[in-house]
Amino acid sequence: MLVRKQKTRTKKRIFNKMYKYDYLFNFTKNVFMKLGCSESDSEIIAEVFLAAELRGHASHGMIRIKDYYELWKSKRINANPNVRIVHESPSTAVVDGDNAVGMIAARRSMEIAIDKAKNAGTGWVATRNSNHFGIAGYYSMMALEHDMIGICLTNANPLVAPTFSISRMMGTNPIAVAIPAMKQPAFVADFATTPVARGKLAVAEKKGEKVPFGFVQDKDGVPSDNPSILKEGGSMLTLGGDRVHGSHKGFCLSSIVDIFSAVFSGANFGPFVPPSVAYLPVLDKKVGVGTGHFFGAMRIDAFQPAIEFKLKMDEWIETFRSAKPATGEEHIIIPGDPERECELRIRKEGINLVPAIKDDLVVIAKEIGVEFI
Amino acid sequence: MLVRKQKTRTKKRIFNKMYKYDYLFNFTKNVFMKLGCSESDSEIIAEVFLAAELRGHASHGMIRIKDYYELWKSKRINANPNVRIVHESPSTAVVDGDNAVGMIAARRSMEIAIDKAKNAGTGWVATRNSNHFGIAGYYSMMALEHDMIGICLTNANPLVAPTFSISRMMGTNPIAVAIPAMKQPAFVADFATTPVARGKLAVAEKKGEKVPFGFVQDKDGVPSDNPSILKEGGSMLTLGGDRVHGSHKGFCLSSIVDIFSAVFSGANFGPFVPPSVAYLPVLDKKVGVGTGHFFGAMRIDAFQPAIEFKLKMDEWIETFRSAKPATGEEHIIIPGDPERECELRIRKEGINLVPAIKDDLVVIAKEIGVEFI
Repeated sequence: MLVRKQKTRTKKRIFNKMYKYDYLFNFTKNVFMKLGCSESDSEIIAEVFLAAELRGHASHGMIRIKDYYELWKSKRINANPNVRIVHESPSTAVVDGDNAVGMIAARRSMEIAIDKAKNAGTGWVATRNSNHFGIAGYYSMMALEHDMIGICLTNANPLVAPTFSISRMMGTNPIAVAIPAMKQPAFVADFATTPVARGKLAVAEKKGEKVPFGFVQDKDGVPSDNPSILKEGGSMLTLGGDRVHGSHKGFCLSSIVDIFSAVFSGANFGPFVPPSVAYLPVLDKKVGVGTGHFFGAMRIDAFQPAIEFKLKMDEWIETFRSAKPATGEEHIIIPGDPERECELRIRKEGINLVPAIKDDLVVIAKEIGVEFI
Repeated sequence: MLVRKQKTRTKKRIFNKMYKYDYLFNFTKNVFMKLGCSESDSEIIAEVFLAAELRGHASHGMIRIKDYYELWKSKRINANPNVRIVHESPSTAVVDGDNAVGMIAARRSMEIAIDKAKNAGTGWVATRNSNHFGIAGYYSMMALEHDMIGICLTNANPLVAPTFSISRMMGTNPIAVAIPAMKQPAFVADFATTPVARGKLAVAEKKGEKVPFGFVQDKDGVPSDNPSILKEGGSMLTLGGDRVHGSHKGFCLSSIVDIFSAVFSGANFGPFVPPSVAYLPVLDKKVGVGTGHFFGAMRIDAFQPAIEFKLKMDEWIETFRSAKPATGEEHIIIPGDPERECELRIRKEGINLVPAIKDDLVVIAKEIGVEFI
């Protein structure tokens, strides 16, 4: 399946100019410096956008620069935030993101979690008053170089209905967990608590294709295969798809992400999470401040000597890699494999931007006075 | 759906004697004291078995006493364990369960997590050398009275295949999270990381019914609706059911539960988790000691004043309760609602044991010399 996907990509890429990592990094950094972000903040923002591109999650990459720019233009995001701890214990902290670009509040929060873990064994940070932060996997992976396990959760714009309901109450609320190994690459899970990401519906819509049942429902709660149904009052479904197949478990997961991200931190929860795009209005009702995230760092040697743990993780990964494939499949996939393979390829071949994204970036570049070709 | 189920139960119950909680509690306590467990340990074991009955998870209740008894008879479980901390940091500990009855190792571990949280804000305990511990929800709920969030994970006998594979590599690896509220009952999620629990397949099998596609596959990885397929080399599937519907996310969840429970603790992981029944042989290969669990306790006021948090949880629960039901549905279900309603009913009406379970208990009672009628 992965192989087939890559072939299609190769074919498309022939018709597009490929960008070098450094070019897009510097461009993105320059954009955010023009918006008033500090140089170091702008570098962090660029790094997270580019991490999404490298890992094959273009839906969270350069395409989003326009959304952030529009939020900034409508004064809904703070380029010079004072991200600060407002409450703490030896192993925990609550961070106020001061309405920062999400990457800035998130990276600082994960650094605090890692610092807490150095002393207390584990560190847990709930962050409020933040915004969309890109890919969750980036922050969980910050823990790896410290021989720690990293965890990252965030709530997001409401598009998803709980089991038995038609109300859009939750975002695609992702969970990311990064676990280091020794010779094997790290285990990195980074997934929405819905069967598919929002972006896949958009792709099917553009292609005029139907989607499998189990992804979305119409405004009355009837299962649908129409990827445009969200525009007609429909909603996305939680992982499991329907009650028979365990959608109530997906609802549990999504709820836990929302409560940890928002109720621990004092951010807006569920249906009150503010939009991450400027073309949707600010909500009238608020139950907290901004968007919420949750970060965890667990020092391995607070449980086992790091070397022993990482050797055991090698054994875990090798054991699972040796699982017998089903008829017609080549091998199983360890969480993090596809993204790592994607990164290796893209670092060599360059980053492909589709014309519509390029056009947006050209307009932004012109408006704020940076170069983009 | 819940309503329909209860009606069926009522019909059946007419033909069965209902047991009082205290009668079954004392019987279970007496059984384990006869096996050599201390009085206080026997009370803990009885409490967890009965908690499963009360919460409507009879698959983890009195039916399992026979399994524990047979394990004890074949000297595969330790009635007088020295459950002890073998490694710790301010917020973490690794516990060796000394091959105890799972409830004893698990309850002690959760107590340690709660103690750690009192000082460090959060407490995290990985437990090895344990056995099947009953329902995960019981341990997560221990945190509630301390104004803490409780978390419990465990690995289990391998029955589940990773996405794209036919090898049984994982158990139904449950996740339990309990979160206190103020006026509203606590949020308690307790779910297997598969679409259904193993017990539901057994029920369908006994009734001669098919199961929906998405639960199991045959020995070649072909989707199946045959609930007996596990006996023919088949395997259970992870939450999501197939790759298109997100089974790789269920695989991520199940893997995380396994790694936290076993690699953090030094227990057996994945396919090497020892059987929880005596009729399956001890595995030749070991990669650790016994079964593994993972426990977490998070002091609410390490993040927010407890009253504020719990009032906000009331608001969260009330917001979600007010979600519009889909056509044909009455209302959404907050995690923990069905079990709490079940407990209220069973505490009033008594506990129903099906004849086959009663017969087993009569035999055990006779063999070890306690009373059971």
